[in-house]
This record gives sequence, C-alpha cells and structure tokens, in this order.
Amino acid sequence: MELNGVEIEDTYAEAFGIKVARVLITGVSKHWAMVAATEATGFGTSVILCPAEAGIECVVDGSETPDGRPGVYIQICTFGYKALEEQLLNRISQCVLTAPTTAVWNGLPDAEKQFDTGFKLKFFADGYESELEVGGRKAYAIPMMEGDFIIEHGIGAVDGVAGGNFFILADSQMTGLTAAENAVDAVMQCKGSITPFPGGIVASGSKPGADTYTFMTATTNQRFAPTLKDKVEDTNIPADVNAVYELVINGVDLEAVTVATKAGIEAAVKVPGVKKITAGNYGGSLGAFKVNLGDLF
Amino acid sequence: MELNGVEIEDTYAEAFGIKVARVLITGVSKHWAMVAATEATGFGTSVILCPAEAGIECVVDGSETPDGRPGVYIQICTFGYKALEEQLLNRISQCVLTAPTTAVWNGLPDAEKQFDTGFKLKFFADGYESELEVGGRKAYAIPMMEGDFIIEHGIGAVDGVAGGNFFILADSQMTGLTAAENAVDAVMQCKGSITPFPGGIVASGSKPGADTYTFMTATTNQRFAPTLKDKVEDTNIPADVNAVYELVINGVDLEAVTVATKAGIEAAVKVPGVKKITAGNYGGSLGAFKVNLGDLF
Amino acid sequence: MELNGVEIEDTYAEAFGIKVARVLITGVSKHWAMVAATEATGFGTSVILCPAEAGIECVVDGSETPDGRPGVYIQICTFGYKALEEQLLNRISQCVLTAPTTAVWNGLPDAEKQFDTGFKLKFFADGYESELEVGGRKAYAIPMMEGDFIIEHGIGAVDGVAGGNFFILADSQMTGLTAAENAVDAVMQCKGSITPFPGGIVASGSKPGADTYTFMTATTNQRFAPTLKDKVEDTNIPADVNAVYELVINGVDLEAVTVATKAGIEAAVKVPGVKKITAGNYGGSLGAFKVNLGDLF
Amino acid sequence: MELNGVEIEDTYAEAFGIKVARVLITGVSKHWAMVAATEATGFGTSVILCPAEAGIECVVDGSETPDGRPGVYIQICTFGYKALEEQLLNRISQCVLTAPTTAVWNGLPDAEKQFDTGFKLKFFADGYESELEVGGRKAYAIPMMEGDFIIEHGIGAVDGVAGGNFFILADSQMTGLTAAENAVDAVMQCKGSITPFPGGIVASGSKPGADTYTFMTATTNQRFAPTLKDKVEDTNIPADVNAVYELVINGVDLEAVTVATKAGIEAAVKVPGVKKITAGNYGGSLGAFKVNLGDLF
Repeated sequence: MELNGVEIEDTYAEAFGIKVARVLITGVSKHWAMVAATEATGFGTSVILCPAEAGIECVVDGSETPDGRPGVYIQICTFGYKALEEQLLNRISQCVLTAPTTAVWNGLPDAEKQFDTGFKLKFFADGYESELEVGGRKAYAIPMMEGDFIIEHGIGAVDGVAGGNFFILADSQMTGLTAAENAVDAVMQCKGSITPFPGGIVASGSKPGADTYTFMTATTNQRFAPTLKDKVEDTNIPADVNAVYELVINGVDLEAVTVATKAGIEAAVKVPGVKKITAGNYGGSLGAFKVNLGDLF
Repeated sequence: MELNGVEIEDTYAEAFGIKVARVLITGVSKHWAMVAATEATGFGTSVILCPAEAGIECVVDGSETPDGRPGVYIQICTFGYKALEEQLLNRISQCVLTAPTTAVWNGLPDAEKQFDTGFKLKFFADGYESELEVGGRKAYAIPMMEGDFIIEHGIGAVDGVAGGNFFILADSQMTGLTAAENAVDAVMQCKGSITPFPGGIVASGSKPGADTYTFMTATTNQRFAPTLKDKVEDTNIPADVNAVYELVINGVDLEAVTVATKAGIEAAVKVPGVKKITAGNYGGSLGAFKVNLGDLF
Repeated sequence: MELNGVEIEDTYAEAFGIKVARVLITGVSKHWAMVAATEATGFGTSVILCPAEAGIECVVDGSETPDGRPGVYIQICTFGYKALEEQLLNRISQCVLTAPTTAVWNGLPDAEKQFDTGFKLKFFADGYESELEVGGRKAYAIPMMEGDFIIEHGIGAVDGVAGGNFFILADSQMTGLTAAENAVDAVMQCKGSITPFPGGIVASGSKPGADTYTFMTATTNQRFAPTLKDKVEDTNIPADVNAVYELVINGVDLEAVTVATKAGIEAAVKVPGVKKITAGNYGGSLGAFKVNLGDLF
Repeated sequence: MELNGVEIEDTYAEAFGIKVARVLITGVSKHWAMVAATEATGFGTSVILCPAEAGIECVVDGSETPDGRPGVYIQICTFGYKALEEQLLNRISQCVLTAPTTAVWNGLPDAEKQFDTGFKLKFFADGYESELEVGGRKAYAIPMMEGDFIIEHGIGAVDGVAGGNFFILADSQMTGLTAAENAVDAVMQCKGSITPFPGGIVASGSKPGADTYTFMTATTNQRFAPTLKDKVEDTNIPADVNAVYELVINGVDLEAVTVATKAGIEAAVKVPGVKKITAGNYGGSLGAFKVNLGDLF
C-alpha cells in the first residue's frame, strides 16, 4: 500500500515483553521538568549494554498534574522487576531529586505492581522529612538546598512492550533524518509510548547475533546498509535510497506502541524524498508481539 | 571579599581524584552532536548511584575537529580505569554509534593512558568494517543503516579531579536558578571541565553520611536547607536567603576545575538577588584537592 | 480572592478593538514553521511604533493542517483593514515565502472579511505559477529555489480585541520572569490569542500620555515601578514586591482573550514568590472591553 | 575549484552599499538577550517590503560587555541615515526596552556617525530617569515595572555592505537546508556580519524585475528553480540537484561579508549531498561590491 505516495511494506514489527515503570516529573516550568527527565532517561537506549531502556513519553500542562505545574512523563524499562526497582531508585535519586525545582509523581497509580520508591528516598532527609498530601496523593517533603523536594510514596509498573519499530528509507541522510525527527515529534504527542534511542532515532539498526564475529550479540544489519548495497547480494536497499533511520518504540502496552507507530509513520511520509517504510522482524524468534504496518492505515 | 557586591566567603572547595576519559563527538550539525552527547552523558551525575559521572564539556566548530564538522567534547569519570573502559564501551556503543550522523574522536590523544575503544567497536560491522585516516587520526568505518559510522582507534584518559564546587545563596529560588544557569553557561565556555548534574546544577547539595539514618552514605545538608533555617541551630542560611544551588565541577586537572570555578562565580554574581557565594568542604577528609575561593579574584 | 495563596486583585483589564488577521504557516517540521512565524511576527509588539501587533498563537500537528504537516498559527493586528492588508502582504511575502519549507493557509476561512493575499503573491512566480487544491483549499504553487511554495488564495480577518492584560507582582525579578514565562507557555496552549511582546512578556508596562514630558504618547507607569516605590507617593508596589511583569493579550474575540487570561494567571501563581496578580485599566477611557479578574476563577 | 569534493563555481557575489547601525543587547542570560534581539530584528529580511534589513550578528559573554552580562550584537540596515534613526528608535523602544532584563549598548562606539537614541528614549521615564556610567559608557536608567532599564547615550552607524550571498545546490531539500543551517551557524561565529532572512536562510532567491509581470520589482529566479529545470531552457540546475538555498549576508564592511561568506561555504560543503556552491550577480548593475568565490579558498 501507499501513504502520501510512499510505499508501506506489507510486513510487521516484532516486539517483546518488558517491565515498564512510568514516572511523572513536574517542575517550575516545562524546561526544568525536561532537564530532569533528560538526565534520568540518559544512557538508556538498549538493555544490550545500558542498565535500562528509558525515554521521555510526553509533556503535560498543569491541568494534568497533582501539583498543577507543568510535567513530563518518562518510562524506565528492564527485563525484571528487581532490576526495575533498582533503576527507579538510582535514576530518581541521582537525576531528579538533584535537579532544580522538580517533584516526582506516580505515573501508573492504578497498576497492580507498586514500588515504594518515594518512601525509600525520604531517608535522604536524615530525619527532617515530613508527610503531606498533594492533589490526593500521599507524598513526602525532603528539605534540601533549593527548598523542599516532593515525592509521591509509590511508583507503579506494568508488563509492557519493547522493540516496536519502523524503518524510514530515504533519498538522502538529511531527508531520512528530518522524517525521523518529525516521527519522534509525533510519537511524543501520543500517551503511553517512548522512543528510547538518542533524539528518539536509531542510526544503526542491527540484527541479532553475527555472521562473522560470533562473539557479538548484535551486529550491523548489512542488508539495510546503503553503503553496502553494491557489495551485499541480498540487500534490501532500493536503488534510489541512500539512508535508513529506524524508530524503536516501547510502551505500557501493545495498543500504545501501535498508536505511536501509526502516528510516527504518518509524520515521516510527509517529508519529500522518503521512499519507503518497512519494519524489523525476525520470524517471531525475538518476541511475542506484532504490529502489522498494513493494519495501521 | 566582594564581587559585584556579592560576598565571596573565604573558604575552599574540597575535590578528589578520579579517572577521566575525554571524547569528541562530531555531527552533521551542532544539534546532532549535542543529541548524542546528551544521551551518552545521561544517568551520570554522581558515582554514588550512577555507573559514572559524565557531562558535556564544550562545543567546538569544524576548525577544531578531525572531520571538519561541529563537535561536542564530553567527559566520563569513574574511580578506576577498569570501570572507565567499560563505561566508554557501553556509552559510546549504545548512545553515540546509535545516534544520527555522529563520529567519535579521541579527546586526549596525547594522554599516556589509551583505551582501544574504537578497535573494539568496529566488530559491530561484522566483517564489513574498514580502516581509514581522517585528519591524521587512524579510524574505522562501520557501515550501518544511515551510512558509515566513523570512530577513531583509541580514546585517552587521565588522572583528573572531581567534586570541585561552589554554592550560590539567593533571595529566591528563581534568582538562584538563573544564576546557576548562567554559571553553567560560563563553565561551558571553558575547556577541560564539566558540570555533571542535571542541567549542570545541584539542587540537593548533601553531606557525607547521616546524623539520623546511619545506613545512608549521603544525606541532605540541613545547615544549607532554607526551609530548615528556623529549625536547625547551626544553620548557614542568612536571613535574606531563601534558596541555594550548587555547581559541582569535574575536570581533567585542578587547573581546569579552578578556571571553571572562577568563570562560574563571575557569571552567577551578575544576577540581581544573589547574596553570597561559598563552597563545600569537609576539613580535608574527602579529597586531596582544594580550590580557594579567595585566590580566584 | 486568592489563587494558590496569591492575591488576585478585584479589578479588570481594559481592552480595545483591533482588526485581526490569522494565518496558518506549515513547515517540514515544527522548527521550520516556527522560524518563519518568528520572523513574520517580529517588530510587532505595539502599534505605538510598530507597523502591526503580531504574535504566535499556537502550534498544531499535521492532523489539523491542510497539507498534513506541522503548523503554527500567527495573528497580525492593526487598527484598520487597509493597514492590515498591507502588513499581510509585506510580512508573508518577505518573511514566510522566503523561509525554508513553509506553506501558508487561511487561519480564518469562515470570516466574512477575506483578503486575496495568496492571489497577489502568486505574481512572484513571474508566469510559472499554477493553481492547485490542497485539503479542499484553493491554492497556488510558486516555483522557487528550494522547490514550490504553496499559498492559499485568501486570508481571513475579524474585528478582534487587543490590550487584554494582567500584572504579576513578585518578590524578585527572576521569580516574576519565570512566572511570566510559564504564563506565556500556558497562553500558547489556548487557541485564538497571542501575547505580542518579546517572549510574550512586557517589562515596561506604561501609562497613556505623560505627567512631565507631554510630547510623549506613553510613558513608564511610575506607580508600578519597584525602584520608585519609596519615591512615588501613590505607589502600587507592596513592600515585599521587587519586580512586576505584564502580559498583554490580543485575540480574535473577547472570549479568546478571557480564556487566555485565566490560563496565564493559573500558570503564574504556581511559581513560589509571586505575591499578587492585578490588571491595567484606565477607567474605561481606553477601550470598550473588560476582563474582570474576579470572574475568572 | 573544489572544496571537500564540492564544486565552487568561479563566479562572484554582487553586493551593494547600505547604512548599518550596530547595537549590543545584554540580558540576565543569553536566552533573554536573544529574545529581545529576535523581536527587534524581526520583519527585517529585505528592504523591498520590510522597513529595514536586520539580523543577529553574534553572541558574546560577559567579558565583552559593559555590564558584564551575556550579550547579543544585532545590526539594523536601511538605505539612508534618516530611515535608520527611525528604525533604531522604533525597534529599540518597542522590542528591547519592553523585553525582560535587557540593557542596550553602542555597538559601534568609534564610528563617526552617532545617533542619540538613548538620550531620546530616556523621556519614557517621564522625569524619573537618571544618568549613570557603566563600564566607561554614559548611560541612562529608566525605572519601569521590572526595575531599571539601562541604555547608553548613543548608537553608532557606518556605510556598510548588503547583499553578499552564496547559493547551496543540493541533492534534496533536507540536505540543502541542513547545509544552509550549518552555514548560518558558522556565520554567527564571525563578527561584523548578519544573515537577515528567516533562520538566516533564503528559500526564494529572486531576480530583479520580471519577465512576465512587469509591475513586479523582484520575481522568482526561474533558472535556479529545481521544479522548472525541465521547463526552462537556460536552467542552472544540474541533473542531480533538487533544491537550492541562498544565504544573504550584510555586514559593517566588505571584509566582514567576505569572511562570513568563506566561513559559511566551508560549513555547508561538509554536509553529504551538497553538489555545488555558486553566487548571485547581475553583471555589476546592482551593486559596487564583489566577493569572488574563487579568491576565498
């Protein structure tokens, strides 16, 4: 099928299960909420060598937050709940409590799984902490240099989805990059999903394992490498394509990942010079979830 | 003494030794070099619970980079070289190689200590890598989805300095925060130093250990907590001060940290409502380095 | 009354009638739509000495634009329709047609008053123009260096409202400025209104005429000048206030200005150190419209 | 000749004389100096239909400004000194005096031509103004809502140069746009020059006059329109080029324009997909100044 004149390949993205915690960070302004969210979700692209996959989900204004201030939702993802609790503690204590003007709220207050991250962080107050209620949420005030840091008692988590994805094939690097940037922008308008890679974009889409260096767990996907299109027999790069960018999408459930995939593709195909959209899958060996591109439009 | 009418307390910042690797990331534009640098230095405020301390040092234009493109210097810091090598591999492979349009260069080519990070990352190419020379640097080309990723063979590291610092005492949170923001901006004009906390700023300056919860390794510094100034007998908060922000400064050597401290303080005192500048020390128990505020001006 | 602990003075903002044209600028990304919108609305704070009052209303995503690309609504305001048509022609031809990747759409397609700005600008194509339909809108394609520039045939205008306003009184400049910044951010979430001053903020709220220099049409409002609070007998500056910022709000109708005023005040009072909100009026001598602060909450 | 593998056509940019005033705007931070500079230089791309050509020259830190705060240099250009004085008064009074935290300084204190813009603006204080000296400059303090606005007595101007230019021919719009963006970035590192168009870039490079609509003073340059390359016999668009962007450069003298042209081209050719650099001239009929591309490298 075609969308805005761009071929959408009849294929699917293969995604897999992951544990997802969701945190709402508020600040005196969007800017400062974003500063903390950026630090807290850094070094968090892929669990291959990062301690978590993490990203910024969306920005909300004061009407949607317990303290009436602007906020940013983030997600932190790991394969198990034990690792997730540790990442929550480490990332919130080091990157949000330390950040100017922020407060921390439960992003999944109705989830069954709840970590008492706020309760644990209050000990930083060394006896000067106090309990309070803000917008119906039980929270703690921790007196610090800038004033009081407020954190809700618990942070919720769910069985979510990781590895949703699509590929943008373009006539030039800058076309592909602008399309990818617009796609990330569109995903950030959707609730429930993140794009954990740098700026939301993957420049180095990989295959599991390796053909040559068998000690590697993931290596370049040579069939999608434009500079190898004349050297690799089974290349997937059409003649008029010179760059490919991938978006990887995680979310609280398959629905969130599906909605984000649709929004991202719709934004990408608006950029002149985008030639084709496809997605990555491994015949079902990697994960239990599928997002069929053909079903989206 | 006074600077621009603001009291500079006659005290010193106490700093300690750390291992520092320095990496130059170039990109098609400053924006994209910065996107990768931000991801690679995230979750990197304090080694207390982060795998490294990391930050953005400065931005350079194409005249100062091997490939003639705009670039960003980052630093990654850990207590030992073994941990440092692992952090370099993990952060560069997951956060820079994956990022749009970037290349990676040795930020300390003359250092005695050199890691072969580029050599190790080239195996991602699964046999399609090639060696090349760019601006006199030995590098590898790794074919990927966006095109070829270029990384220099080695990354250098030195015995550096961490924990340089100063405190900004202000009439209001927003005064203190603007002063801190300007100070971070000024430090980013200096070569050799980073401010690893969120947005470069610490809102939660701490003391080592705890008075009440002895299981904690660091807790709030109650003597510098404005909301406790009427509750703590030995408070350091003057009557006209309602917020304190700290800058923590790491660098390749003591000189770099000292220059950055001076530039940061000069920028901070220009904001109306800043009342006093001081610094944190622990009687020499924490570290071997001192930056005397009184010697700076 | 009080809002979030901040006094809202029982007074009203006095506003006056103005002619308002509304233009939708789309671009390949939000960034580039915003670049054109910023240039096109510059030098447009007050009709006292600017050729128009102009500002950015809000950002919309591709689902709300004729060409499916991200967009920015701007408003251009003058006292008469003749001046308005000239400003539309000059600002769109010089600042949007010249800008990268933009297209121009009618922001008030249902208004009675319609200017044929697109029709007039097509002559720039020097005979190479063509007519087309995009999303149901009649438009022209103008071949240029970057490709084709698309502009809709007409641009609508209405009898709108200018001079809506409120004042933020704060303990320090930086508190007031952050509160004003948050208020502008909140107004940008509302449709139909703009804040035409630099960054949306007025630092120099004035009174009509002058007491001393009678050749001046507007001069500083000394009763709201914090540095004169001990020198002016009838000062309006409370003892704990050291800075005042004003938001001036224009809109397509009184409802839009009222909604924006409410949203702006709600965002401003969330910043710690804001002491009072009031508004400017001149006993009805300036304008026909009133926004009562007391009716908003 | 070639630069980084890109053809630099052996031609010249034709520039013409203009009057240039230079203003230094300082602010509490770079951000706020930039907000005022952006408003003050808006609606200022071309004197064809704008009241002035205006742009941001460069950013400087506190070590280079009279009040020790970060600053932004802007230039305002018109064909005569009378129009220039009016533009200075209008743009500074409406867009800088009104902006948060700014002060205004003479950007050309040694120029022979000096306007007493500060002297004239002090009447806004309605009798509450005072004279002071800051960093050796005679200035006035004007009490306002946010506090005191400081403006230097005079603003200098010189016989400058307008219309310096070069064209970037690229394989795709996004390649050309990224190259143009990088070029603007590089020009902003140079002192003495501005790029007055939106974001510094011209998407609609024109020819003087018209072939078809003789009532037009400037129309599209069809020989450089990629979408007309198969329709126009004497096209200048090579087969592999699909987009062209132009930078227009004004400056305080020919040297400043020349330096900026060189820096801009060097940055542009680093973007993969740029095919050719050329420049616009009209056989000497338009202006008295030439920048030979071949002499730059």
